[in-house]
Parts: sequence; C-alpha cells; structure tokens
Amino acid sequence: MLKVIAQDFIKLDRVEEVMPLYRELVDKTRAEPLCISYELCVDQKDPGHFVFLEEWPDRDALDAHCATEHFQRLVPLIDRHQRQPGTYLLMDAFA
Amino acid sequence: MLKVIAQDFIKLDRVEEVMPLYRELVDKTRAEPLCISYELCVDQKDPGHFVFLEEWPDRDALDAHCATEHFQRLVPLIDRHQRQPGTYLLMDAFA
Repeated sequence: MLKVIAQDFIKLDRVEEVMPLYRELVDKTRAEPLCISYELCVDQKDPGHFVFLEEWPDRDALDAHCATEHFQRLVPLIDRHQRQPGTYLLMDAFA
Repeated sequence: MLKVIAQDFIKLDRVEEVMPLYRELVDKTRAEPLCISYELCVDQKDPGHFVFLEEWPDRDALDAHCATEHFQRLVPLIDRHQRQPGTYLLMDAFA
C-alpha cells in the first residue's frame, strides 16, 4: 500500500478559479479502477494551501494515475495559479 | 470533520527505540471513542520521518486526544528522540 501527501500552494486570488479544476480532478481520479482513496483538504490557516491525501496499491498505480488524460490536462491548468512549487511525499504504512 | 497531518523527525539511530512507543500510541488512540481514523506512515525516503494521518469529528475531539494519559505520557518519550521539532497541520475536507 502506498500513501501519498501532495501539497499545492495556490495564489489566494486564484482559489475560486482552481476549485472546478480540483473538483474534476478528484471526481475523475476516484473513478480510476486502481484508486483506493483520494481526498482533498484545505489548511485551516491558509485557504490557498491544498493537500491531497492519497492511497494507491503500489507505485505503478500512482504512475498510471499521473499518466491519465485528466491528470495530464488538469494539473498544468492548476499549476498556472501556484504561488510556489507543490511538494509530494510517498509513504509506507507503519501502523 | 477535522483532518490532521502530524509529522515527527526522529534520529535515525533511535527509530528502533520509538517503534514500541508509536505502536502503543496508535493502538490506544484508535481505541478512543471519538477517533475516526489514526494512521502512522513512514517516508519512503527517510526512515526517521513519521507522518500521522488523523481524522477527528472536531477540534474538541482532537484536544481531548491530546489530553489523554497515553498522549501525555508517550509523546514526551518519543520527542526525546527527535532530531528536529515536529509539525502539524489542521485541515478541512474540500472534496
């Protein structure tokens, strides 16, 4: 099982613009056959700080997600509104 | 619903020592009546970087967790082995 935390930092005046892009990305990703869990959260102290909590069976499944049409199309559209580069962290379950 | 990411950075030569402390913290926290979800993960690139993914009904439930006997006893024991201060992030679900 692979756990992922992916963090995006969006300009505060662009949050409204990215909302429908995130919505579509979440809906289409959850419909992927290999997706176990895919949640999007917002930092309570920073409305432009978005955090994806993801769960995939393995690295191949994550790579397949990153190669999908929706990922390849939507992520660059979202990234146009970044105020700083996103980060991601790949993790194994400990307990 | 409150989502939490809490990150610990443990000295690499102390990881074995903190394992049973984490194990007890996870087991006792999951037994708390208000705990929705409490998972501990490890960064694939850094075996001393531990990440808690938590879900609580609200801030009061998180505060109650931080006041429990097991939290108050175990967290200072774990923190003795830190190489840098931990971080935490409180989030709302977006989607």
